[in-house]
Amino acid sequence: MRAGAPRLSSISWCFRLASEFGVLMAVESNGKSDSLQSICYERGSLRLLDQRRLPRETVYLDVRDATDGWNAIRDMVVRGAPAIAIAAALSLAVEVFNLDFAGTSGDAASFLVKKLEYLVSSRPTAVNLSDASTKLQNIVSKTAKTATEAKTVFQAYIDAAETMLTDDVADNKAIGFHGASFLPCQLKDSGKLSVLTHCNTGSLATAGYGTALGVIRALHAGGSLETAFCTETRPFNQGSRLTAFELVHDEIPATLITDSAAAALMKAGRVNAVIVGADRIAANGDTANKIGTYSLAVSASYHGIPFYVAAPITSIDLSLSSGQQIVIEERSPKELLCSDGGLGKQVAASGIAVWNPAFDITPANLMTAIITEKGVITKATADAFDIKGFIQKAQGNDIE
Amino acid sequence: MRAGAPRLSSISWCFRLASEFGVLMAVESNGKSDSLQSICYERGSLRLLDQRRLPRETVYLDVRDATDGWNAIRDMVVRGAPAIAIAAALSLAVEVFNLDFAGTSGDAASFLVKKLEYLVSSRPTAVNLSDASTKLQNIVSKTAKTATEAKTVFQAYIDAAETMLTDDVADNKAIGFHGASFLPCQLKDSGKLSVLTHCNTGSLATAGYGTALGVIRALHAGGSLETAFCTETRPFNQGSRLTAFELVHDEIPATLITDSAAAALMKAGRVNAVIVGADRIAANGDTANKIGTYSLAVSASYHGIPFYVAAPITSIDLSLSSGQQIVIEERSPKELLCSDGGLGKQVAASGIAVWNPAFDITPANLMTAIITEKGVITKATADAFDIKGFIQKAQGNDIE
Repeated sequence: MRAGAPRLSSISWCFRLASEFGVLMAVESNGKSDSLQSICYERGSLRLLDQRRLPRETVYLDVRDATDGWNAIRDMVVRGAPAIAIAAALSLAVEVFNLDFAGTSGDAASFLVKKLEYLVSSRPTAVNLSDASTKLQNIVSKTAKTATEAKTVFQAYIDAAETMLTDDVADNKAIGFHGASFLPCQLKDSGKLSVLTHCNTGSLATAGYGTALGVIRALHAGGSLETAFCTETRPFNQGSRLTAFELVHDEIPATLITDSAAAALMKAGRVNAVIVGADRIAANGDTANKIGTYSLAVSASYHGIPFYVAAPITSIDLSLSSGQQIVIEERSPKELLCSDGGLGKQVAASGIAVWNPAFDITPANLMTAIITEKGVITKATADAFDIKGFIQKAQGNDIE
Repeated sequence: MRAGAPRLSSISWCFRLASEFGVLMAVESNGKSDSLQSICYERGSLRLLDQRRLPRETVYLDVRDATDGWNAIRDMVVRGAPAIAIAAALSLAVEVFNLDFAGTSGDAASFLVKKLEYLVSSRPTAVNLSDASTKLQNIVSKTAKTATEAKTVFQAYIDAAETMLTDDVADNKAIGFHGASFLPCQLKDSGKLSVLTHCNTGSLATAGYGTALGVIRALHAGGSLETAFCTETRPFNQGSRLTAFELVHDEIPATLITDSAAAALMKAGRVNAVIVGADRIAANGDTANKIGTYSLAVSASYHGIPFYVAAPITSIDLSLSSGQQIVIEERSPKELLCSDGGLGKQVAASGIAVWNPAFDITPANLMTAIITEKGVITKATADAFDIKGFIQKAQGNDIE
C-alpha cells in the first residue's frame, strides 16, 4: 500500500533507520521539498504544525513531553482523530526517549500507563486516542512482565508509537481505494461525481492522504471527480482553512461554501454524494463527527443523496451499542464569540450565552455506507449495519 | 399600535415637527439615551449606524445623497429588507432637500424616478426596496401632473419617505402581536416556548421592534418565551453580531449557536418552533431569505417542528407565482475568504473557489404559517397558502 508518495503528507511517512545513532530519521520518499508536514518526528524530537494558524502562517511548535502533547491536542494545534492519537503517542515517545529514568521495568510501565491515561483526557470523544492508549498500555504491560530494565519497556513503547504512524497512511490509501471503487458503482452514474465533505479529514488530520478526503483524492486520481465541495465547518473553520488548503495544494477542483448553504446546493442538484469522517462509530453505525455532520445527513436524506462515512476500523467502538452512549464534548464559547476560532478579535455581542458542542451524532438510518480500510460496510437491513460481522469477517480474511 | 416605546429602536420613531424651522426633529419618546438607533434621520440629514462594525464599535456614516445610500446598502452598512427600503428612500429625501434645483415639476419627477431606479439596483433581491421605489415613483408622478413647481414634487416625495418609517414600527408590533398570540395556541403547549431564529430581523433590520425577532420580543413580553436561540448566520454573522446584541440588550434569555448546530439542537428536543424573516415571498408562499433558512426548514420538517415566516405584507410579491422566479444574488467570495464578513484578515486558503449565495428559497410545503401585520396566513391545503385571498380579505377589512 505504500507505493507512491502522498502529494500532501502530514508526516515524514518513509523512515530510514540510522542505526549507528539509534535515531529514526524522517525522510520524504518523493524528495519534494514543498510537501506539507503537520507532524515532524524523529526519534527524540517532535514538532507539530500549528494548524490554528493555517493557511496564513506555517509555524511549528516543539513538543517535548506528554504535557506539551496534551496542550497541543486540547488547544487544537493538531486535530483530526487519527492525527491526535499519533501526536499523543509520539509526544510520550519523545519524553521517554529523553528521560533519565531511575527505576525498574515495572516503574517504567506504571509511568507510561499514567501518562497515556492523562493524554486521553485531552480529547475524551476521540476513540482513536483512547484505543491507541489501550493498545500501547497492553504492549507496555506485556513487555514489563519479561523485561529486566526500564529502557526495554521504553524502547518497546517507542517502537509501537512509531509503527502507528507508518500504518496510518497505508490504511488511508486503502480507504480511498475502496471508496473510489464503490461510489461510482453504487451511484450508477457514468459521469463524474460532485462530492460534498465537511471538516478536515485529509493529510492534516491523519498521518497522510486522509479518510473522507482520501476518497475524494482517489476519485480525482481515477478521473471520477467533477468537483469537491467543502464546508467552512464552523466554528473552527477546519474546512475553509485546512480542507480548502489541501484541495488547492493538490489541484483538485473544489468550491468552498458556508455550512448553511449545503442544503441549497443539494436542492440545486449539484451534489451527488456526501462523504465525511468519524470521530467515533458505535456498534450500530451511529457516528459522532464534527458538529454540522448531522445537519448534512438530514439534508442529504431529504434530497435522496447518499451519505457516506469514511473511517478506519479503529474509529469503531463495538462497546457502544448506539450513539446515545457517546459523550459529546462541549467546547469554549470563545470559538463563537471571537474570530479565528476564539483566538481573534470579538465578533459576537458581549454577554450572549453559547452552546458549542464539538460533535453531533448521525444515526445509522441516515447513512448509506461506512468505508473502511477493510472494505465498505453496507446495510444488512434497511436501517442497520452489521458492523461486528463485517469486522469478524475482515479479521478472518487477514488471518487467511 | 404605537403605544409604548420599543426598547431598542433603529430610528427615531417619534417625530415632532419643528415647523418654525421646517425641520422634522427626531426625538425618542421614552427619553432613554442609551437606545440604539441604526437610522438617525431628521429632514435634510441622515446618518446610518455601520452595522458591519457592531458589536465592537458604534460608528455612524453620513449619507448625503442617493449615491451614499446605494453604497451603504450594497456594502451592508445597513441591511434587513425593511431597513434597506427606508434607508434608500431617506437618502434620496436628504439629497433633494438640500438640492438647488433649476427645473420644472416634470424635471423633478424625472430626477426622482431615475434616482429611485438606481437605488433599487443596490440590492436587487429585496422586494421591499423595489416595492417602495414603485410606490414613491407613483406618488412623484401623480404630484408632478398637478404641481407647478419642482419643490412641490420634492416635498411630496420627502413626506412619503418619512411616512414609510413611521408606519414600519406599527406594522412590526402588529406582526409581534399576531405571532405571540398564534404560536402558543397552535403549539398547544402550556409551557414556555424555545424559539430558534436566523439572521437579524430585529430593530437593526427594520424601523424598530422587528419581524421574526418582533414575535420573539412579543412572546417574551407575554411571558411565553423560554429561550431564544440565534444562529451565527454565516458568512456575515448577522446573528452573532446583531441578533445576539439585541437579545442581550433587551435581557431576553438567549443562546448563540453555529448554523450547523441547529439540527442537533432540534434533535435534542430543545426547539419548539423556528421563526425567520423574509426578503421576498412569492404568491404561493415560497420564501427567499438569508442563506441557511432552507437548511433550517428541512431540519425543522424532519424533526416535526413548526416553521414560521414573519414579514410585512410588503415582502409578498404576488407577481411571482413561485420561488423559482426569484433571482438569487451572489455575493463576494471575500465574505468567506476573510474574517469579519470579508473586511478582516485571511481565513480561508488562497485560491479556493467560493459559492456565496446571499439567499435561498424555502418552499411553501416546508412552512407552517406566514405571520403578517394583518394576521397569520395558514394553509388552505396541505402544501399551499392562499396568500392572494388573504390579502384581498385583509384589504377588504381595512376598507370596512
